[in-house]
Amino acid sequence: MTEPAVESDTRPWEELLKLARQGDESELSDYLASLPPTDQAFAFAHLDDEDAELIVNTLSVSHAAELLSRLSEAQAAGLVGTLSPQLAAAIVHELPSDEQADVLGELADDQVGAILDQLPEDEATDLREFIAYNDEVAGGLMNRELIRIPLNETIGGVIRIIESALERLTEGDVRYGYVVDDSDRLVGVLPMQNLLFSKRSTAVGDVMIREPMTVHDQTPLDDLIDVFDSYNFLGIPVVDADQKLVGVVLRQSVDYAAGQAAESDYLKSQGIVGGEELRTMPLWLRSRRRLSWLSVNILLNVGAASVVAFFQDTLQSVIALAVFLPIISDMSGCSGNQAVAVSMRELSLGLLRPTEVLRVWIQELGVGLINGAVLGLLVAIAALLYNGNGYLGLVVGTALFANTIVAVSIGGTVPLIVKRFGFDPAIASGPLLTTITDMCGFFLVLGIASQMIDKLTQ
Amino acid sequence: MTEPAVESDTRPWEELLKLARQGDESELSDYLASLPPTDQAFAFAHLDDEDAELIVNTLSVSHAAELLSRLSEAQAAGLVGTLSPQLAAAIVHELPSDEQADVLGELADDQVGAILDQLPEDEATDLREFIAYNDEVAGGLMNRELIRIPLNETIGGVIRIIESALERLTEGDVRYGYVVDDSDRLVGVLPMQNLLFSKRSTAVGDVMIREPMTVHDQTPLDDLIDVFDSYNFLGIPVVDADQKLVGVVLRQSVDYAAGQAAESDYLKSQGIVGGEELRTMPLWLRSRRRLSWLSVNILLNVGAASVVAFFQDTLQSVIALAVFLPIISDMSGCSGNQAVAVSMRELSLGLLRPTEVLRVWIQELGVGLINGAVLGLLVAIAALLYNGNGYLGLVVGTALFANTIVAVSIGGTVPLIVKRFGFDPAIASGPLLTTITDMCGFFLVLGIASQMIDKLTQ
Repeated sequence: MTEPAVESDTRPWEELLKLARQGDESELSDYLASLPPTDQAFAFAHLDDEDAELIVNTLSVSHAAELLSRLSEAQAAGLVGTLSPQLAAAIVHELPSDEQADVLGELADDQVGAILDQLPEDEATDLREFIAYNDEVAGGLMNRELIRIPLNETIGGVIRIIESALERLTEGDVRYGYVVDDSDRLVGVLPMQNLLFSKRSTAVGDVMIREPMTVHDQTPLDDLIDVFDSYNFLGIPVVDADQKLVGVVLRQSVDYAAGQAAESDYLKSQGIVGGEELRTMPLWLRSRRRLSWLSVNILLNVGAASVVAFFQDTLQSVIALAVFLPIISDMSGCSGNQAVAVSMRELSLGLLRPTEVLRVWIQELGVGLINGAVLGLLVAIAALLYNGNGYLGLVVGTALFANTIVAVSIGGTVPLIVKRFGFDPAIASGPLLTTITDMCGFFLVLGIASQMIDKLTQ
Repeated sequence: MTEPAVESDTRPWEELLKLARQGDESELSDYLASLPPTDQAFAFAHLDDEDAELIVNTLSVSHAAELLSRLSEAQAAGLVGTLSPQLAAAIVHELPSDEQADVLGELADDQVGAILDQLPEDEATDLREFIAYNDEVAGGLMNRELIRIPLNETIGGVIRIIESALERLTEGDVRYGYVVDDSDRLVGVLPMQNLLFSKRSTAVGDVMIREPMTVHDQTPLDDLIDVFDSYNFLGIPVVDADQKLVGVVLRQSVDYAAGQAAESDYLKSQGIVGGEELRTMPLWLRSRRRLSWLSVNILLNVGAASVVAFFQDTLQSVIALAVFLPIISDMSGCSGNQAVAVSMRELSLGLLRPTEVLRVWIQELGVGLINGAVLGLLVAIAALLYNGNGYLGLVVGTALFANTIVAVSIGGTVPLIVKRFGFDPAIASGPLLTTITDMCGFFLVLGIASQMIDKLTQ
């Protein structure tokens, strides 16, 4: 990630706001167009709702739609939410079909309803169907704009259809034409380059690729990733249960969704759950979302700490143990999280199935033995240096050795088990792991210590 | 992430191995082709080096190259590393140009040298130049196969060039032709659909898009992401310092690289540094890589624990404090990591510049105040329930309240500061955060406790 092209001391939002206050649409949209997309997103991350609304209100509807395409989904939805339903509807009308669903999908149901009420009846019905698709199936990822070619057309006719379509299509590059029969069922595909090698009088049926690959509108993202990995298509037609052509899912939409899923796993693993957080969101919303995860964690923490409470007398006799408890807890968490990360990665690459708990456990045992021995030795030396009692080193070293093995075993397998029970491993693995390794680590240190309390208190 | 299509109790690697032992190339390659790409990767994740080598040796060179395209880079490189340089060179020769660099880039220098020595002189020279590019610049991401059109050609001639190119191109869809002058400098671009609307006798110079957008071979990934966000191109030509056409960078390559970067950030934040880990890698390599990060962490941990050691007498007098130290440490870490995740996300979206430390700090303060108050209250109640001494609750509650504010302040700003100093925020933010919040948390609990030791020991 390099520095953005524009110097970091420029403040593009100030210029935007100045131009918006002057009310000059063409200067404002020219300046906006001169900013790279990340700078547009950057500028809107620095504007409060009112100022952002003023800018969008000053822009023409089509320029406003272009702007929304450049922003992240959460930013775009936040902006649309502040507009009047009339203006919001006019802008949504201008967006490419896949982005319409993305933006409306982030809004509350009553906001979506108010916007749809402003659109023409048939567009609203279409859009309602489209929003109903899950984000992570072909129907939710597809574009509905495509070049539809009647089966009885000639190549010359197709070229005329493409010529007129080029004007209304938001996508600049035409990839394929889709050939449909009278009932709108897909019967063939025409890659653009095939048109080059045919006479204009040729019937479409003679040069199209018959029985083209299709996906169902409910095909999930993972299967789409697989299909695009296997075949070098730029887009695949989407059909509904009646084999009617409903859209085309593009490689770039699938790649983008896959990237979003990976980033969302990272955020969830760090405790950002319930949706992406932008710091421009309202404070109470940010606090509440973060707290929902933290409050579960504090309960789990109190559970783990109760092990320490149970051994309070041992701790009182050998207070030096208290210095090492946080080290054991933290290091075991680190070792376990490494194993969680490797399992999450192998699961997402398809190298690992949720049933292979035993195999993963065996593969982690070796790492646990080696790393546990090294870390145990290091902490034992630290303990010996700390108070000169070799038995203290023996206790904390043994405990960290054993608990590292526990941590990598739990860490490697917990994402698989969580997934088999139908929960999201990105959210649940971390808290489960640290709770178990904390309880086990405290139990090991204090349990072993209480067995050799005489040696420790000499 | 849904379950794979094949039942999880099938073992595709056993079938592969059986067919390889029978030595029947066509049955083996047919079976392989019948597996979805994730199942191919899954199967090779379950084979040891010898068995994998046997399978690749049985396959024809072109089928082996197809297989490598389906595997992850680390898997593919691992496999190529086990082959004889002759066979490896023959397979690399068959790979698409962007994948050649990906695979060779993961191998050791002497292995790369041995493979290149087996290739024809000019191909080896080409490839050596290509590997020299960094992975994350246009030169490292581009494809070198493209349709090169002399400026003096007619549309009819272009169509003949494309027809013959279609046979050798590994990419199934042709997107653009690139028009070059006598010195191989790019002078124009021909989108395929434009060819449809021109007479065959037209000169290329009359219909091509002049002064097309290009990127330099050293243009970094982030700028490429920006360019593809701004313009709906499927590919952009890459030129060297002399404006000579050297390749074309495809949207899908940039999307893929961006996804890889996001996943790599997740792995690094969890302590998987020094490269992706697959559990099929040698045990000592996996242990060593994980230990390199753990051993830094244990040093940081010992540093934080020394604060506890400093207050050992306070702890001895009020042993109940020891029960709450791990809770304070863990909860502060959780709060801080949430702020780290939000900053990492805002940095990668370009919503935030590394200079905006003050702005982020102010935005985190509000969250810290609210969440600190809630968490502090919860832990205070837990302490009161634990030993009935309200002062203990006051100490740990106040400490967690204050330390939550510290944690979100550090967590939100540390990725920015680390980045400004030129380090990788994904690797360094977590350990720095937990060390500082641990030290500060222990100091707060024990420092406040030592000030009101009389009340606590009543």
